[in-house]
Amino acid sequence: MKICNYTFEKFMDIVKFFHGYEAPGMIVGGFMVDYVLKNIPEGELFDAICETSSCLPDAIQLLTPCTIGNGWLRIVNLGRYALTLYDKDNGNGIRGFLDLSRMDDYSEIKSWYLKLKKKKEQDSNLLLEQIREAGSTLCSLEPVIVQSQYMEKRKKGMIAICPMCKEAYPFKDGDKCRACMGESPYL
Amino acid sequence: MKICNYTFEKFMDIVKFFHGYEAPGMIVGGFMVDYVLKNIPEGELFDAICETSSCLPDAIQLLTPCTIGNGWLRIVNLGRYALTLYDKDNGNGIRGFLDLSRMDDYSEIKSWYLKLKKKKEQDSNLLLEQIREAGSTLCSLEPVIVQSQYMEKRKKGMIAICPMCKEAYPFKDGDKCRACMGESPYL
Repeated sequence: MKICNYTFEKFMDIVKFFHGYEAPGMIVGGFMVDYVLKNIPEGELFDAICETSSCLPDAIQLLTPCTIGNGWLRIVNLGRYALTLYDKDNGNGIRGFLDLSRMDDYSEIKSWYLKLKKKKEQDSNLLLEQIREAGSTLCSLEPVIVQSQYMEKRKKGMIAICPMCKEAYPFKDGDKCRACMGESPYL
Repeated sequence: MKICNYTFEKFMDIVKFFHGYEAPGMIVGGFMVDYVLKNIPEGELFDAICETSSCLPDAIQLLTPCTIGNGWLRIVNLGRYALTLYDKDNGNGIRGFLDLSRMDDYSEIKSWYLKLKKKKEQDSNLLLEQIREAGSTLCSLEPVIVQSQYMEKRKKGMIAICPMCKEAYPFKDGDKCRACMGESPYL
């Protein structure tokens, strides 16, 4: 049983290194990404949409060329545990999602996924065991077509220097940068 | 010259593996993250804010424990090439930004940063050489305090099952999931 090119153990190591800890969502996510990857046309240049900001984006970043920083991964946070890999050119893609109808044999996964138990009541060894056993069988696939506005690449355009903070910013934002217009996250 | 625990060459390898190519912004970003890390209190548990979605988030994800998927990295996209690492508890942080006043000796970096030349007119060897030579000297630091609303952790809360798509979603979103309410990115 492998997750992309990694053994299960190696993937767990990478998850720990990158994500900080072996989160159940990361391991489930690894199987999901692997499964979707196996079902898109070979050699296709694809982008990714992730429908949650929890865990799954990290599985996508580790197992595909798509990252937040290179712009090939976009998070459309709908709170669903699902991802789509789609053709950069025409938007045709495969969406993989966690399928509740496939969880009946895996009570601990179902409890975790639907938050039926408090965290401290979870049996994390059993959960991990079930995730490993279930592999990608929890994931269902469907063909989708991504709307064109979600396929647009970000473009900074011309760069200006902010008269207030003296830093570079996108000219299209206005006569000063958005931080100096009041959007700064700092006091 | 190292970038965190990596030699320059090793960091370039990791960048290529994760980000897909040796983007100038990733290498500049590596030096920036390294510099900010060296200037926060040792052993501090920190979160990260990144003020751009281009390149820099990947340098943060590779060099710190903060990722998009674990929620310790938040992108507040102001279009400025800057990051802040701050104390999870009290919001006290150090902000590192690319400082235009420090670029006078590095004409190719300045051209790249302010987009003064078209991409095909850039001298990418000279650019890389200058980035390597400049290291973290292009980066200035300032103390900041992060506003409390930017420090809040995302919480999904209770989980419901969408009557339309049959997938799990955050109960607080309403009587069906936001995709089925019309926010789906698919046709």
